[in-house]
Amino acid sequence: MARPTSGAASAQAQANTSFDVEISDKWNIGENPNGGYLTATSLQAMRHTAGQPDPLSVTTHFLRPGSGATGGVVETQLIRPGRRSTTVTGQLHQGDKQRLQVVAAFGDLSAESSSEINHSLDLPPVDLPPPDDCVSRVGLEQGVDLPIMSRLDIRLDPKWAAAGASDHAEVSGWIRFADGRPADTLGLVLFGDAFPPSLFSLLGRVGWVPTLELTVHVRRRPEPGWIRARFSTTDLHNGMLIENGELWDSTGKLVAQSRQLALLL
Amino acid sequence: MARPTSGAASAQAQANTSFDVEISDKWNIGENPNGGYLTATSLQAMRHTAGQPDPLSVTTHFLRPGSGATGGVVETQLIRPGRRSTTVTGQLHQGDKQRLQVVAAFGDLSAESSSEINHSLDLPPVDLPPPDDCVSRVGLEQGVDLPIMSRLDIRLDPKWAAAGASDHAEVSGWIRFADGRPADTLGLVLFGDAFPPSLFSLLGRVGWVPTLELTVHVRRRPEPGWIRARFSTTDLHNGMLIENGELWDSTGKLVAQSRQLALLL
Repeated sequence: MARPTSGAASAQAQANTSFDVEISDKWNIGENPNGGYLTATSLQAMRHTAGQPDPLSVTTHFLRPGSGATGGVVETQLIRPGRRSTTVTGQLHQGDKQRLQVVAAFGDLSAESSSEINHSLDLPPVDLPPPDDCVSRVGLEQGVDLPIMSRLDIRLDPKWAAAGASDHAEVSGWIRFADGRPADTLGLVLFGDAFPPSLFSLLGRVGWVPTLELTVHVRRRPEPGWIRARFSTTDLHNGMLIENGELWDSTGKLVAQSRQLALLL
Repeated sequence: MARPTSGAASAQAQANTSFDVEISDKWNIGENPNGGYLTATSLQAMRHTAGQPDPLSVTTHFLRPGSGATGGVVETQLIRPGRRSTTVTGQLHQGDKQRLQVVAAFGDLSAESSSEINHSLDLPPVDLPPPDDCVSRVGLEQGVDLPIMSRLDIRLDPKWAAAGASDHAEVSGWIRFADGRPADTLGLVLFGDAFPPSLFSLLGRVGWVPTLELTVHVRRRPEPGWIRARFSTTDLHNGMLIENGELWDSTGKLVAQSRQLALLL
């Protein structure tokens, strides 16, 4: 849990505020903490500075890998408070090096009735076999160790779970916290960066696919239960790729979308 | 053109650098400068600080509308220099108020041969009638004045150009600078925010659709000539929407993708 160490974290603060954070190694992918986990940890501090509960738009630039089982500092700055959305930046440092540069707009997604707009468009949820008929991510031969699977329960649609089995790059499945607690809107940001690379179904073992930049839009607070997710890559060029993701809650409502720019090493 | 006014704009600079910029009113949509134009203007300054030519990933939070026919200051900060990509932040101020918060990763997209990755995936270009069989954006009844159309030549596929004519929210067409100069990678960022809202084909006149946050990924340097573009909205909920865009150059290669979170007022 983020804990402020200097400055005043009110919605009026214009100065930088620093928060001490603990970075666990239980969320590692290979030897480094998962980027979605580091982003969600940074967002805990940034949310405090924003004074609003839900991240509407989150963009993280991953500057260097983080380190697990050690501390860190998140420096936040209130850029623009507003009634509908508040923009905050966050910088995660460990040791003397900055690891993440984050910018996020926060708002209140419980205020569903505030809009007079009647129109809506929705992406229908991806069709999936029941979780028990899916394949745990633990069983995939991905070429990296996955300590994060002690914290997350991820079940993949079998049709994407065999290396190089498909003629396109897609992965879909179910995700929840392993300890059974329901996901909040920060959890959705983490879930947006927790699946195996969608290139796996096309190319097989691709090892670590480092993310340069991740943007997640949270669209609704999720109802408790399994989250459905689909990730796909249709743009891979010169060793860089864009992966899109969509997440739905247990009622079938779209709760988040993600897009990341990543490197194929 | 951005001009540094303080600090040293070398790739080693860690301190803030300030650039004076001119903001024209010739790029207005209604009474305020287009957000893509303000972003591209900020990127000119940020590129100077980055020391690398091409924006790979650009995220802008629009805090307040800008003002045309007046000056501004872009404050840049070098966050993380790197061989493959360099992350820089930029803050556009006019008067005593910040208008934009930008973060971007810059690199060199001329270095096409640097990757040993042979795999590629490409989105095929949208099918369009020839530009002369399309409809100028000038002729659309959108409910806002469009000074920007003195600077941009935008031709829309007629099937999307009638208000509320479609059962889904999409717009596609051609775009180029009105003075005939070819687009560079900064121009692509501007083009990613220059079409009428894709909701027009579904809902008709929607007036100004303010963007909260815009992310553009530039994937290639464009060849000279018309740029093809397609924008669509499949996620509209509680007065907020996500619009996705794709841009291709005159050879049919994907050159950029965009996504924005916007408000339907």
